[in-house]
Amino acid sequence: MPRQEGYIQISTEALRGKGMRALVRAGVPEDEAEIIIGSLVEADQRGVYTHGCVCLPRYIGLMRSGRMNPACSYHVLRTGTAMEVWDGERSNGQVLGHRAMLRAMALAEQSGIGLVGVRNSNHFGAGAYYAQLAQRAGMIGIAMSTGSSTMAPWGGADRLIGNNPVAIAVPARRHMPLVLDMAQSVVAFGQISKYKLEGKPSLPEGWALDRDGNPTTDVDAAYTVQPVGRHKGFGMALMVDVLSGLLLGAGTGDAAADEHDGPGCLFAAISIDAFTGRDALLDAVDARIDALKQSALRPGVQEILMPGEIEGRNAREAGETVWIHPKLVEQMDALA
Amino acid sequence: MPRQEGYIQISTEALRGKGMRALVRAGVPEDEAEIIIGSLVEADQRGVYTHGCVCLPRYIGLMRSGRMNPACSYHVLRTGTAMEVWDGERSNGQVLGHRAMLRAMALAEQSGIGLVGVRNSNHFGAGAYYAQLAQRAGMIGIAMSTGSSTMAPWGGADRLIGNNPVAIAVPARRHMPLVLDMAQSVVAFGQISKYKLEGKPSLPEGWALDRDGNPTTDVDAAYTVQPVGRHKGFGMALMVDVLSGLLLGAGTGDAAADEHDGPGCLFAAISIDAFTGRDALLDAVDARIDALKQSALRPGVQEILMPGEIEGRNAREAGETVWIHPKLVEQMDALA
Repeated sequence: MPRQEGYIQISTEALRGKGMRALVRAGVPEDEAEIIIGSLVEADQRGVYTHGCVCLPRYIGLMRSGRMNPACSYHVLRTGTAMEVWDGERSNGQVLGHRAMLRAMALAEQSGIGLVGVRNSNHFGAGAYYAQLAQRAGMIGIAMSTGSSTMAPWGGADRLIGNNPVAIAVPARRHMPLVLDMAQSVVAFGQISKYKLEGKPSLPEGWALDRDGNPTTDVDAAYTVQPVGRHKGFGMALMVDVLSGLLLGAGTGDAAADEHDGPGCLFAAISIDAFTGRDALLDAVDARIDALKQSALRPGVQEILMPGEIEGRNAREAGETVWIHPKLVEQMDALA
Repeated sequence: MPRQEGYIQISTEALRGKGMRALVRAGVPEDEAEIIIGSLVEADQRGVYTHGCVCLPRYIGLMRSGRMNPACSYHVLRTGTAMEVWDGERSNGQVLGHRAMLRAMALAEQSGIGLVGVRNSNHFGAGAYYAQLAQRAGMIGIAMSTGSSTMAPWGGADRLIGNNPVAIAVPARRHMPLVLDMAQSVVAFGQISKYKLEGKPSLPEGWALDRDGNPTTDVDAAYTVQPVGRHKGFGMALMVDVLSGLLLGAGTGDAAADEHDGPGCLFAAISIDAFTGRDALLDAVDARIDALKQSALRPGVQEILMPGEIEGRNAREAGETVWIHPKLVEQMDALA
């Protein structure tokens, strides 16, 4: 769904220009502004509007209020042959993430795998962006982040844990790369806000719980989003809290919010050459996708889709354009 | 639920003795038999009966038919500073997994993280066993395995992908360790077999699809198990296929079955000392568990449970005993 009701089509070049001007005006160095706006425009091209340019006013607001460091700085806290831990000094999450994934890729080049964790970071947007930095370089990339609380622990009613996204990207040869980018909740809380904004009164079943922890379809009563697969999604969210939060001394739950410590983010790169070798893997991934796509279909289903395939098609269709809400364009112009 | 209807209580010592005799008789060296029966008895103590001694007759059958190498051998295919790939030569999955995780821990000691992949392995039972080897040594442990096909790709009807378990274990100080051990399906196919065995005609909704890919609650029509969280569980299963299968040149889907290549397994250990330091992490994990457990409860819920807490309590309650089906004891005696 790259085209949304009421959205207008604009060239990526024009949109990047607006974003660049807004960011540079807020004090972001030009090369860093390119990374930030690049990642946001890419999300919009992929139809992942929740992580696209809509995030820009929020980031600039955080820079103006002093919560986000406009010029990226960080210091290295720990190093090992295959890992590093950074203090991100509340720099922008995209720039930190970009640098951390490049460092993880360099470590993987030497050691087969590289792991870089960043504490005191900021919202990193779409995890797919970082995972794909590795995938485009012929590696496997993994990115995860703690998020501020939107879910209850399984069995609970209080908002205490983030939906903690995990993204994994794997290169293919004939096929599109496999790009899984999933939160540990059934839907993002943003989906509920969207229903509210559009004046739709009732949510699909299974999305939300009310303040007492009862399932609800009432937009106004929705208080937490439900974890994917009940206790399993809660368990995965907690493990992301550990790996990209507690292990790095980073914020989890409420402490991962913009106005507190910010999230912790973990970036991993795996060198395919160190394992089975690039040619062998690309062939194996293609063959696996072929086998899965040849499955008989459920009634009403047109084709079997791989993780990231819808988003990849959106991007291909969008080409050098983006569908965007005119109000957001106005906001960006005002910020510039 | 350590106590099951019709089960009898037996000392772990007696059960281990039966298992040891059966394995040694099948040609397994004594030290390896101890690892195999140790992991199976531990699963039974934890109430994870699907991965307990019930697996022993299957393993011994595979040894007798020449599909499982009774005396562990393997060769190292690739090495890096932080990783190794092994060909498991179809040795027993538990012994390979035990050795591979110990090696991953040694690599993590040097490099911060260690990754060991094993192709041409066998069923490794409960992933928690390997993850907990690392956790008990004060590290974070991760274990995953491809499995033979029990699920359809999302939108499909054919049985083409395993439910590919992932286990992660994290040490705590005052609390039980966090031990997540989850398949990427709503339930294991074994649960459906159990319903059939017990003569129950109808399954809970959301568990299974029939041969045409339609949701079904009919025990006899159930053909595939549904992935956790729809496309998300399929996506995770596919990523496990990549990481512990294709990346190692190992079997995925039907090729991961006992009678074909067997599964591929991946073991990761993370040195906590290389990251935040052990004391800091143990305190942070305890504090996070405290915060989550203090959540208000959903109506009807008694307490918030962490991943692995039910199994940990089962093991504590069981002590040096196991609840086991008398028929299985007979089978084990016959094999000895």
